[in-house]
Amino acid sequence: MNADTPDLYPNRLDAVRARAREIGIDHVVVYSGEDMAYLTGERLDSHERLTALVVAAAGDQPLLVLPSLELTDPVRDAAGRIGAEIHPWSDGTDAVALVAGKVSGRVAVSTAMPALHLVPLQQSVDGEVVLASEVIDHVRAVKNTGEVEQLAEAARRIDAVHARMGEFLQVGRTEAEVGELITAAIEAEGLTHAEFVIVGAGEHGADPHHGVSDRVVQQGDIVVVDIGGPLPSGYHSDCTRTYSMGEPDPQVTEEYAALQEAQRLAREAVRPGVAIGEVDAAAREHLAAAGLGERFIHRTGHGIGLGLHEPPFVAPGADTVLAEGMTFSVEPGIYLDGQWGARLEDIVAVTADGRRDLNNGERGLRAL
Amino acid sequence: MNADTPDLYPNRLDAVRARAREIGIDHVVVYSGEDMAYLTGERLDSHERLTALVVAAAGDQPLLVLPSLELTDPVRDAAGRIGAEIHPWSDGTDAVALVAGKVSGRVAVSTAMPALHLVPLQQSVDGEVVLASEVIDHVRAVKNTGEVEQLAEAARRIDAVHARMGEFLQVGRTEAEVGELITAAIEAEGLTHAEFVIVGAGEHGADPHHGVSDRVVQQGDIVVVDIGGPLPSGYHSDCTRTYSMGEPDPQVTEEYAALQEAQRLAREAVRPGVAIGEVDAAAREHLAAAGLGERFIHRTGHGIGLGLHEPPFVAPGADTVLAEGMTFSVEPGIYLDGQWGARLEDIVAVTADGRRDLNNGERGLRAL
Repeated sequence: MNADTPDLYPNRLDAVRARAREIGIDHVVVYSGEDMAYLTGERLDSHERLTALVVAAAGDQPLLVLPSLELTDPVRDAAGRIGAEIHPWSDGTDAVALVAGKVSGRVAVSTAMPALHLVPLQQSVDGEVVLASEVIDHVRAVKNTGEVEQLAEAARRIDAVHARMGEFLQVGRTEAEVGELITAAIEAEGLTHAEFVIVGAGEHGADPHHGVSDRVVQQGDIVVVDIGGPLPSGYHSDCTRTYSMGEPDPQVTEEYAALQEAQRLAREAVRPGVAIGEVDAAAREHLAAAGLGERFIHRTGHGIGLGLHEPPFVAPGADTVLAEGMTFSVEPGIYLDGQWGARLEDIVAVTADGRRDLNNGERGLRAL
Repeated sequence: MNADTPDLYPNRLDAVRARAREIGIDHVVVYSGEDMAYLTGERLDSHERLTALVVAAAGDQPLLVLPSLELTDPVRDAAGRIGAEIHPWSDGTDAVALVAGKVSGRVAVSTAMPALHLVPLQQSVDGEVVLASEVIDHVRAVKNTGEVEQLAEAARRIDAVHARMGEFLQVGRTEAEVGELITAAIEAEGLTHAEFVIVGAGEHGADPHHGVSDRVVQQGDIVVVDIGGPLPSGYHSDCTRTYSMGEPDPQVTEEYAALQEAQRLAREAVRPGVAIGEVDAAAREHLAAAGLGERFIHRTGHGIGLGLHEPPFVAPGADTVLAEGMTFSVEPGIYLDGQWGARLEDIVAVTADGRRDLNNGERGLRAL
């Protein structure tokens, strides 16, 4: 990626340490997965065997504790990026006790660490274990230029799949068949895989988390298509458009127009210094005024980066103050149970004085 | 699956409750994923939004707490299988507080629950939170007839892929190319996907957790092939064989023979009443006697079921007493850093008076 300079990972580590000191955290225990990828360039997943990066807020050299079975060249490279000492452990060693012995005071752990490791860590650590939300997640929420460019590139590629939707979404095909064509197109765009594919035709569009089914797409259906997949760097895409199989009836057209305006107003609300709850409110108030408030049944969006869904969340009353580099979805929807639904989703980035839309495909209700 | 009778899930729930009472647990909080699939027939994954099944050890009706967005027919079916009350929650609700309000005393949580939910649960629950290892994992470790048959069927299918290895593993192909052919064969067998594919040629065979790479398979290579995937029911397969590209040299033949005998002795040690550590010891002592003790660098095996790796683990000194219905891998290996490795892995089931081998492919070092 663009920003993958030699300083990238040391800078991230410094930012995590600085934030830990700022809020009175003594040690950070980083678990496998997205947090680990953010700090080392590798996820370092290791099933039920514990892998953890131990970072002292006031210390120099982090310590990478991992199963000796996993000690390969990519792991050495990952540790090397941040000058971490590697401490491999063999089957039969109590790896949690090993980590516990290296930390004390207020210890912040990755939100992804499972109870399997967390509960014994709490029992053996000399200190208090808290969530690392205000440390790692806080730092991860503000993307640098390289990360925003990765998200923009992922968005361009998923936009390109939506632009071809007429090839895939056709009357007579099942949602599942349409989904397979979309999956192939996502992979053809160089995204590593389809992380999720929702093709919600007719009444299925009223279920925001529908996947695909054997339901056949019919003339007159309104169809919600919500798709995404990551770049090889791990940065995600996530974009929803709603399609009409033939010309929609006037009420659908009118209600969709209200949704589109609500989403525009929410995007317009995005700028540094604004509480993220105001972005949610902008969409929610417009839909309420249009008589559609009861039909908007979820939050307006979620942060996106190495995680598909990550903080900050765009929810009623949420008080995270927007800062340059934050990236999240803006995706209000309206749902009529048993009949149809519509959703419009773009990823935006907060800039120095406003926002940048990372998705730029046509936002209207497209008739196919 | 064979055992999917109407009382399958109620029986499992009863077993979890009985075990909870036996060891002084008041409530069990079951998280999304394998534990949930075990108790309801559905994984009920829901990203960062909490889904949890609350089971009172002494109570009647379990409570399924989940995001209202996820309330679909399969969810209703899952709840219906165990007569659970469904409590959907909307964005903006504190779902953890909702769960915390329903439990008290000693509260056991699924080992898979992430810190994101666990830490706030601990803070708001009126009681002590402990791992559910001795409750859910304990019950899950003993499979019923239907589950053993599912694992046997999965094993037959992965055996069939190994039986065709000569078609895939050929001199001149890269490990990655071989891996793609194996993946296609796994899917052709009706396993849902390749959960993992290791093709470790030559020096890569010395890394037990190698995946695939661009290394070309060469004449004379010893190649470790460790593959598996689940049936649609979720029950896993996992089988390793070692191949020789051409006739192996006499020292490899001799060392492999010691490995094969070590694995046979470990399987022979499997019967009810034996501590699982004795299975590990049987393999380990034979390899040590053959002068290969230092080259066996991992535990002998892991439980398998809805989880690919689950308790009980076949490790030095492990004291789980084998009981009819337990299923696990027996997979000693020998590794020579930078040169070659070999591993032999079968899944076995503990029977009333001994064991049943679920994998039955040729166990010798097969020359291709």
